Amino acid sequence: MRLPSRVLLREVGPRDGLQNEPPVPTAGKVALIDALSKTGLQRIEAVSFVHPRAIPQMGDAERVWSEITRHEGVEYSALVPNLTGARRALDVGVRSLEVVVSASERHNQVNVNRSTAESLAEIEAVVDLAHSVGATCQVIIATAWGCPYEGDIPVSRVVSIARAALDAGADTLAYGDTTGMATPTRVEELVETTRASLPTVPLALHFHNTRGTGLANVLAALQLGVTEFDASVGGLGGCPYAPGASGNIATEEVVHMLEDMGVETGVDLDLLLDVAAQAERLVGHQLPSQVLRAGPRTRTVAS
Amino acid sequence: MRLPSRVLLREVGPRDGLQNEPPVPTAGKVALIDALSKTGLQRIEAVSFVHPRAIPQMGDAERVWSEITRHEGVEYSALVPNLTGARRALDVGVRSLEVVVSASERHNQVNVNRSTAESLAEIEAVVDLAHSVGATCQVIIATAWGCPYEGDIPVSRVVSIARAALDAGADTLAYGDTTGMATPTRVEELVETTRASLPTVPLALHFHNTRGTGLANVLAALQLGVTEFDASVGGLGGCPYAPGASGNIATEEVVHMLEDMGVETGVDLDLLLDVAAQAERLVGHQLPSQVLRAGPRTRTVAS
Repeated sequence: MRLPSRVLLREVGPRDGLQNEPPVPTAGKVALIDALSKTGLQRIEAVSFVHPRAIPQMGDAERVWSEITRHEGVEYSALVPNLTGARRALDVGVRSLEVVVSASERHNQVNVNRSTAESLAEIEAVVDLAHSVGATCQVIIATAWGCPYEGDIPVSRVVSIARAALDAGADTLAYGDTTGMATPTRVEELVETTRASLPTVPLALHFHNTRGTGLANVLAALQLGVTEFDASVGGLGGCPYAPGASGNIATEEVVHMLEDMGVETGVDLDLLLDVAAQAERLVGHQLPSQVLRAGPRTRTVAS
Repeated sequence: MRLPSRVLLREVGPRDGLQNEPPVPTAGKVALIDALSKTGLQRIEAVSFVHPRAIPQMGDAERVWSEITRHEGVEYSALVPNLTGARRALDVGVRSLEVVVSASERHNQVNVNRSTAESLAEIEAVVDLAHSVGATCQVIIATAWGCPYEGDIPVSRVVSIARAALDAGADTLAYGDTTGMATPTRVEELVETTRASLPTVPLALHFHNTRGTGLANVLAALQLGVTEFDASVGGLGGCPYAPGASGNIATEEVVHMLEDMGVETGVDLDLLLDVAAQAERLVGHQLPSQVLRAGPRTRTVAS
C-alpha cells in the first residue's frame, strides 16, 4: 500500500462543527480553539463571517477571532460567505480565507439563493480583495460527490467548477462531501479526473462520515497521494439534512488511523482526545467519534 | 483501484450481535433471521450453542434453530464453544459450525479459561466430530489484530495459530478483529503474511468498527482480493470492553459502500435497511449504523 509519509490536517470543528450544533458561549469557543492549538494541529478553521441572522452560532466571529491565543506554527482561517463577510474578516486581520460554491446548481440556490455563476463572480471579487491585502483564499466546492437535492453530480461538472474557481484566482481548492455521499471509487474518479484536467491544482478533501465511508474515503485519497484533509474534533457537527446522522469525520479518528499506518499528522492523539472530551462537554451531548468512546487501540484494559 | 467483482457476506447479527445486547424473545430472533433470509444474504450465523449460564442470550439456540424458515441459497451456521456445544448443534442438524480460538493467550484464558493449545486440541475433536457427520467447521481466530489485555499480537503468532487450526482440520478460517484494533496497513500485513505461509487458505475477515476503521479495513482487504466478510445488521452488538462503543461493522454500511463501488453483494439494500430498523425495534435502542440513520446516498431530500 503506497501512502504519503505525512499529511496536513485542518481542524474545522470550531466552524463547520459548531455551526451545526446548538449555540455555545464565546468563551467556550475560544477555549476550544486554544486547546486545539496545543495539539500539534497546523491549521484551524476558527470562525465564519456569515450574517448572524443566517447562522446565529457564528454571530460572535469578531470576538472569537480577537480573543484566541495564536500558537506559533498554526494557520488560523475563516470562512466568508460573500464580499461583506470578506471585508469583516480582512478588517480584523484574517489572512487565510475560504469561500464556498456548490457543484450542484440546486444546492447553491437553496444554500445562498443565487446561481453558481453568480457565486463564482462574487468569489472573484473576494479573491481580488483578499489578494489586495496579501491574504490567500481557498475555494471549497461543496456537494462534490453528490447533492441532497439533485443526487449525483457529474464529475465533469465538478471539474468545470474547479477550473472556474482557479480562473477566479483561488489559491487552493477543497472538495467537500457535504452530505457524506462519497465512496472510495468516487474519490478516485474525481481526484484522477481533476488532476488530468488541472495537474498543478493544490487540492484538499473534506469528508463527512454521514454514511460510514469517511475513513475509507481518506484511505482511498491517501493511496492517490492526497495529503490535505479537513476533520472535526469529536466529529462535532452533524448533518442538517439527516437529523441524528454524523457530519464531519472526527479528527481523532483520522489521527488514530493515520499514525498507526505510519502517516504522520504532527498531532498528539492524547491531547486531541482531551479536547474531544472538552468539545463534548461544550455542546452537552455525545459526539459520534468512536475513538473518543473506545479509546485508542494502544489503550489496553490493563492500562 | 483493483476490486473483486463480487463478495460473500456472512450476517452475524443474530449471534455475535444479539449475544452482546440485552436478551430478546425467541420469536423476535426467529423473525429477524427470517427477514434477513429474504434480503439476498447468502450466509447467516444464526445462533451459538454455548452454555446458557455463560451467555443467557443464546439459551434458546435449539428453539431458534428449529423455528427459523430456511431460505433456498442461504447457508445457516452456528458457533460452538466446545465439543458439548458441537454435539448439541449437530444433533439438531447444523451442518456449518464455527469455533473460536484467540491469537492472544491471555484473551483465550479470560474468554474460555484454557490455553490456546487446549483450545486447539478441543477444536481438533470438534472438527473430527463435524466431519464424521458431513458437517464443515470454520475456525475463527479472535484478537487477530490485537488484544484488549495484551495489546498487539505479533503477525507470526496469528499465522502460527492459523496453521495449527488448519492442521486441526479446519475447513476454512476467519480472522476476527475482536475489539476493533485493525487498521488498513495491519490488514495488509496480516493477509499478505498469511498467504505467503498458507497460500491456499480460504480466509474470511471479521471486522469491528470500534475505532471507526471498519470500512477502511474492508477497503484494504478488497484491494488484496479478499472476498468474504462478516457484518452485523444495524451494527447490532457493541463492544464488551468499551461500553457505548460500536461492535461489528453494519451489514448495510458494507452493502451500501460495496454496491456503489461496483462490488456485488447480492443483497437488496432497501430490504436490508428494513431489517436493520426491525433489529433496532427488537433491542429497543438506537444502533450505530450510519446508513440506517441517514439513508442510502441515492435517497435525496426530494425522494
